[in-house]
Formats: sequence, structure tokens, C-alpha cells
Amino acid sequence: MGRVTVRRPVRKLSAGGQRRRPDSLAAEEPLEIRVGGKALAVTMRTPGHDVELAHGFLLSEGVLGSSSDVFAARYCDGVDDQGRNTYNVLDLTLAEGVAPPETGVERNFYTTSSCGVCGKAALDAVKLKTRFPPGDSTFSVTPELLAGLPDKLRARQRVFASTGGLHAAGLFTSDGELLAVREDVGRHNAVDKVLGWALLENRVPLGQVGLMVSGRASFELVQKAAMAGIPLLAAVSAPSSLAAELAEENGMTLVGFLRGESMNLYTGEHRVLETATALS
Amino acid sequence: MGRVTVRRPVRKLSAGGQRRRPDSLAAEEPLEIRVGGKALAVTMRTPGHDVELAHGFLLSEGVLGSSSDVFAARYCDGVDDQGRNTYNVLDLTLAEGVAPPETGVERNFYTTSSCGVCGKAALDAVKLKTRFPPGDSTFSVTPELLAGLPDKLRARQRVFASTGGLHAAGLFTSDGELLAVREDVGRHNAVDKVLGWALLENRVPLGQVGLMVSGRASFELVQKAAMAGIPLLAAVSAPSSLAAELAEENGMTLVGFLRGESMNLYTGEHRVLETATALS
Repeated sequence: MGRVTVRRPVRKLSAGGQRRRPDSLAAEEPLEIRVGGKALAVTMRTPGHDVELAHGFLLSEGVLGSSSDVFAARYCDGVDDQGRNTYNVLDLTLAEGVAPPETGVERNFYTTSSCGVCGKAALDAVKLKTRFPPGDSTFSVTPELLAGLPDKLRARQRVFASTGGLHAAGLFTSDGELLAVREDVGRHNAVDKVLGWALLENRVPLGQVGLMVSGRASFELVQKAAMAGIPLLAAVSAPSSLAAELAEENGMTLVGFLRGESMNLYTGEHRVLETATALS
Repeated sequence: MGRVTVRRPVRKLSAGGQRRRPDSLAAEEPLEIRVGGKALAVTMRTPGHDVELAHGFLLSEGVLGSSSDVFAARYCDGVDDQGRNTYNVLDLTLAEGVAPPETGVERNFYTTSSCGVCGKAALDAVKLKTRFPPGDSTFSVTPELLAGLPDKLRARQRVFASTGGLHAAGLFTSDGELLAVREDVGRHNAVDKVLGWALLENRVPLGQVGLMVSGRASFELVQKAAMAGIPLLAAVSAPSSLAAELAEENGMTLVGFLRGESMNLYTGEHRVLETATALS
């Protein structure tokens, strides 16, 4: 399963001329996630930590609430043209009494055939209600701690260093300790992987943990954090409007443009403590 | 429909202290795409150019091959709590004789219930065969032309300038002219929008056009370019391994890390002309 990078020849042009050399690319392969033998979703991901990815995906879809909700996880036994196991299909067997996902990742999209409620129905279809509301969490951090996170995250990005092509997600404590960092070509996958790690470590709900991501903060990432009970999401880049709205709805703290000593607080700023000397 | 940005109050912390001010966020709202009244997909997108987005999406899914394949496109008449049309559901009526998409965006995922072909089935399920193979295209550019594209693209990114939070995609000619530029919170949507623009302008197949994207080059973006017949994809950031593989399979040129005067050629380098004085 050491397929997180792939070597390819590349012709490199620059002001200094051109040369041909091998280059490391971030691996991207499809992972089919099945539940009880039934295909649920295919995601394009960087191989590795697939069991965490599947657990995190199902947590953020509202199917799982604890590690005991899964009875078994196994790769299917298929092989490719060369007779190798491809490790690209993972089947999770749910524990007794755990309801399987209803209609797959589209949820009820296909049932909204009337036009009467249009946009609202479309938004309701993608919104999920968390079983671990993060609104009351007493988690808090200082601006200084937040300002130090991007460098800490980058230092733990092993694959990015060689390919320059991966997103990262990390879970951190109020002391600034990074509990887990995962990388992936898809930022939603990187988040699913850390959430799955936490689920398997029996740390969900994550009411005293923050989530740091290397890129932008979208609606989808805020929703995943909310589903795991995470009260604070910090992103290196911009949030979208819907990300801020959803964070507010869930009583979460949303930090964006976390670069150097500067950052923007969009919602839930009470969790970022105003120390007297903060950043001044 | 001028909802490409949303104003929100933000608390901005920096070395110089803190201040509260309104901030512009890139708008993100769900768009439900329907075909013949049946919901096909919901994508989180930046509102605007939705008709192009839907056309481009269906082109890259293999449903459409020309603008005449669509008989009509209309927003559904739904309203939100405040009685406003949400413009978040777009219904396309296909022309007579055009086959509707079979099983939605999952294609045949749900039919691969046996484990026998595992990974290969998962990959085959996401790969589509283009009706406009770009392999024989005589399109070519110079390294100098490529090197100038990122700045040209950035200059046309109106929403990015105010929010810092959008991906961009642009179609360019061998003379370096940008035919169309579109922005979106999702990079696949930005690409779908320019492809839809081209379809509506009756310019597909795009055998003499290149595609430039502001971020990374994933499998998905290479596939979308291939479906439109585009022979060259250039990205500011890294490609994934599968992006390079698929570009090679389709006889496409893949350029990555296009920054300043430097760039990497991963596949199809014969389309990047070696001028005697190039970049030296």
C-alpha cells in the first residue's frame, strides 16, 4: 500500500534551460466504498489510510457515531490485469442495529421531483443534522496558537514535500498539539481520514479538538467538522459564504486566511481568546 | 443573479492589532441539475453562468455533443422563505433522440456488486470514452505563450480579486488569446462553465484550444478536457498520477507547475514547440 507517490519522467523548462528528470506525483486512484456489499460511493483519493477514510466518510454522512458501529472492514479480493490486488474497493459491514445509508451520497436528491420547493430542497438535501452539536463546546485557543498551526501542519506533510500536490487536514488540541495529520489529493478525503482516525480511536465527539485544513473552507468541510462535533475550523485560505453560514448555524468558530500572524474570524470568535498582548 | 459574492462582518487579527470590517466572501450555493424533470446531480457552486455549467457538466458526462442536443433550459419556479426565486434548480430538456443519462453521476457504480473485478471496475466506472479524441490534434504553443497564461488568467478573475477564494478556468488559442474565463468555488465547476460556454457557442470539439486552470490538475479535469476534445491542459499546480496517465492515454499534453518562466511537461510534449531561444 505504499503507493502515495508515483514516479514519472518529466521535461522541465525554466529560465535556465530544460532538462529531463524523474518526478514524483501524488498518487490518485479511485476507492469504491461499499456498505454491506453494496456500492455507496467512489472517491478519487490518494491510497493509504483507506479504512480511516471510509470510517470518516460514513461518520460525516451520519451513518456512524462510534467505532462500534462497524463490525468489519475488508478490501475486496479483486486483482488487476497483472494479478495484483488493487486495494481499491473497501467493504464495511455495519454492526447489528446500525441503519445503512438510505439512498447513497445523494441522499434524497432523487425524490425531490416537484419544482415547488426548489432551491430550499436542494440545500436541505445536502445539509445534514449532526448528532454531536458543537455549539456548547468550551474549546478555546489563542491567536498565537492558531498562527503557529500552518507551519506545524506543513512540517508533518510528508508527501506534499515530494510532490507539491496534496491537501492536508490536522486535528489539534487547545495546547496546539497535532493529534493526527493526513494528506490527500482531495481535501474532503484528507478531512475524512482524520475524522476516521478519531472515530477508530474512540475520540468522537471531538468537542475539545480543532480542525486545520491547508486550503479553502467550503460548506462541505464545515459540515464534516460539525458531524464530528468539532467546534473550530481553521483554514489557510478563504471560506465560502455558505461555509460561514453553516458554521454560524452550528455555533462553530470559523477562521480563514490563517497566514503568518494574520487571520480572519468569521463566526464564533468567543473561542479565540483575546490575550492582552495578542499579536501586538 | 448577481450573487457571486456575499458581504459578512469579520474580525481581522494581524500583527498591527485587530479590527472589525465587512468582508467579501465567494458565494457558494447548491445547484440541482435536472434532465427532463429528473434530478441528476447537486453541485455546490458559485451562482452565475448556471446554464453554461449544466451544459458543460452534461458534455463532460458524455450526454451532450452539441448545443442542438438541448431543447430548453429553465430555472424551476420555486421560491425561498422570503418569496424569492432561488435560481438553484435548473432543468434541461433534451432534444428528441438524445439519450438521457443512464443512472446519474454514479454511472454504473451500483451495478458492480460482485467483488471479482474490484479496482479495475471502480476505475472503469469513473472513466468515460470521449467522442472527440484529442490525440491527433495539431494544436501547439510555445513555452513563452504558456508562461504568460497565469497572469492573463488572474487579470480576468474579477471575483477572486475581491474574495481570494475562487478557482478559475480559461480556454485559450494557439495565439494566447483567452476565449472565455470562468470562476467558481469548485474547480470542476469552473471547467464545466467554460466547456458549457464553448458548447453553446458551437465551438465543440475544441481541437484547437487549450485549457488553463488555476489550481491542480486532477483525473477529473483531464477527463473533462478529453470529453470536449481539448488537446492541452495547463495547470498552475501539481498534477496527480492518474491525471498524467489519463492524459497519456488520450494523447493529450499535460503541463503542470506553470509558474513564472518554469513549467513541467508530463505528457504530449510535442505540442510545446522548442523554439531556439525558448526561455534561455
